[in-house]
Amino acid sequence: MKLTILGSSSALPTSERYPSAHVLSVYERLYLIDCGEGTQMQLRRNKIRFGKLNHIFISHIHGDHVFGLYGLLSTMNLMGRTSTLSLYAPVRYREILFSHLLDFDIILGFNIDFFPLDSKDPVKILDDKHLTVTSFPLRHRIPSYGFLFREKPRDRNILKEAIEKYNIPAARIPAIKKGGDFVMGSGEIVKNEEITVPGPAPLSYAYCSDTMYFKRLSSFVRNVDLLYHEATFEASLGELARKTGHSTSTDAARSALEAEAGTLIIGHFSSRHKDVKHLVEEARDIFPRTIAAVDGTTYDVGNIDVP
Amino acid sequence: MKLTILGSSSALPTSERYPSAHVLSVYERLYLIDCGEGTQMQLRRNKIRFGKLNHIFISHIHGDHVFGLYGLLSTMNLMGRTSTLSLYAPVRYREILFSHLLDFDIILGFNIDFFPLDSKDPVKILDDKHLTVTSFPLRHRIPSYGFLFREKPRDRNILKEAIEKYNIPAARIPAIKKGGDFVMGSGEIVKNEEITVPGPAPLSYAYCSDTMYFKRLSSFVRNVDLLYHEATFEASLGELARKTGHSTSTDAARSALEAEAGTLIIGHFSSRHKDVKHLVEEARDIFPRTIAAVDGTTYDVGNIDVP
Repeated sequence: MKLTILGSSSALPTSERYPSAHVLSVYERLYLIDCGEGTQMQLRRNKIRFGKLNHIFISHIHGDHVFGLYGLLSTMNLMGRTSTLSLYAPVRYREILFSHLLDFDIILGFNIDFFPLDSKDPVKILDDKHLTVTSFPLRHRIPSYGFLFREKPRDRNILKEAIEKYNIPAARIPAIKKGGDFVMGSGEIVKNEEITVPGPAPLSYAYCSDTMYFKRLSSFVRNVDLLYHEATFEASLGELARKTGHSTSTDAARSALEAEAGTLIIGHFSSRHKDVKHLVEEARDIFPRTIAAVDGTTYDVGNIDVP
Repeated sequence: MKLTILGSSSALPTSERYPSAHVLSVYERLYLIDCGEGTQMQLRRNKIRFGKLNHIFISHIHGDHVFGLYGLLSTMNLMGRTSTLSLYAPVRYREILFSHLLDFDIILGFNIDFFPLDSKDPVKILDDKHLTVTSFPLRHRIPSYGFLFREKPRDRNILKEAIEKYNIPAARIPAIKKGGDFVMGSGEIVKNEEITVPGPAPLSYAYCSDTMYFKRLSSFVRNVDLLYHEATFEASLGELARKTGHSTSTDAARSALEAEAGTLIIGHFSSRHKDVKHLVEEARDIFPRTIAAVDGTTYDVGNIDVP
């Protein structure tokens, strides 16, 4: 599970930070989360292939999270895409999107499967071979949703010694990896636990932007390995954060602590913070495993280095 | 008069070329021509101040010429703009723009003065202190317009020797620079031609994108100093160019030759042309003073170096 951050600015992009867009890569499948202006150029710059992108998640209908979508869809179309694209977005966006594409005479050669977000509770919105995705409500000025990506339990690892000892045929190995026992020619049963060990722990990633702090958020992302949480403002600007429906560095850290997250990555920085080192320090006072998002960087969710 | 190219790709941006956007700078005033996705980031990267931008010209309603406008307007708004912005665009775009801003609850704190383009003939659309701007029809799949920017004649230069010889008071100099004679205390008249020389020749720049070749185009941009003309395709792809309403390298050169332009700059390159050297060579066979647009480069319209 790898996360590439394409944009980590808030509404005003800077020369170093683009508007919000994240790409999660799980077993070669790509999941795009938010699609700020310039996303397609950032995908190219990071050599991420559009063709592997079949799911796009939009947190809320503010331009800095959406204005890259028209160009991206148009480019996919010009590149000859035919496979269905799943789009998960606040319910109101369906009409806005399709009417705007019509305004531009963009007739897509592929289908968009639109999944409307409108629940006040967590909802499982995707369940594929390797992953489940759950949306959950955030608290912002307009309806806003977070997303939790959770790998499914991975296969158990079969012990090499066991294969030799019991002379296990190759054809039986997939079933054993899924947890099955091994039945020998004699009819004797060898218990799965004796011949396997658990596979690597499944990983998880949660995206929380835009939102102000609220207690219930931590229950939605309990024990997540990597928590992205917006931290638009430094700690001293708590009043402004609440007024605009955003979080401070310490709000983000509090959520990470309450959720017992593995690592916290903060982003969606206000352009007023030219340097975000002090936001990281403020967060670390509460939640030490905190880092700041950097555009164009890829993070290995299972192995994040916190200096 | 200086031209900065922010984007020179056609519909599919690459990692090196952004979608169409040009900035013309005349006496510290900025004129933005087309506004492809990422324009606001390119403005920042090139350290061009949004506040000096009061006029935006949109050639036609295709996404690669417009999709950066929502983000730019939104950013201007967040930066507290209050001064009126003049927008010149095909008539149909007025409703599209304002309804899309409403979809995003973007309430602008400044007025947009919308000038609808819909004429089949050249129209003077702007006449300010230093400049006139004329729109003219292009030939594309949908209504598309070019823009001709022409500096007004500049003041004459007064000769230093004349000031000394006739003891001309400073207060009289502005009128003499405008072409007035000097009346001495004795009532004797010194003709303007005797005490001044012509100022630098006024410069001009024309933007032609998107368009296929057509004979009448050259009459719209006669004698222009710098002609930007799209050259989406290499010469061998003439049929594709005509089919899609675009030009080849040689189409662009023909227009430049017929218009007796000073210099031709080609752009709006198809992403199929990773290298555009041969497009420049093809054009130079017809019109030797041809160069290729490069994103992030500023050209001095009165002094362009052609290798």
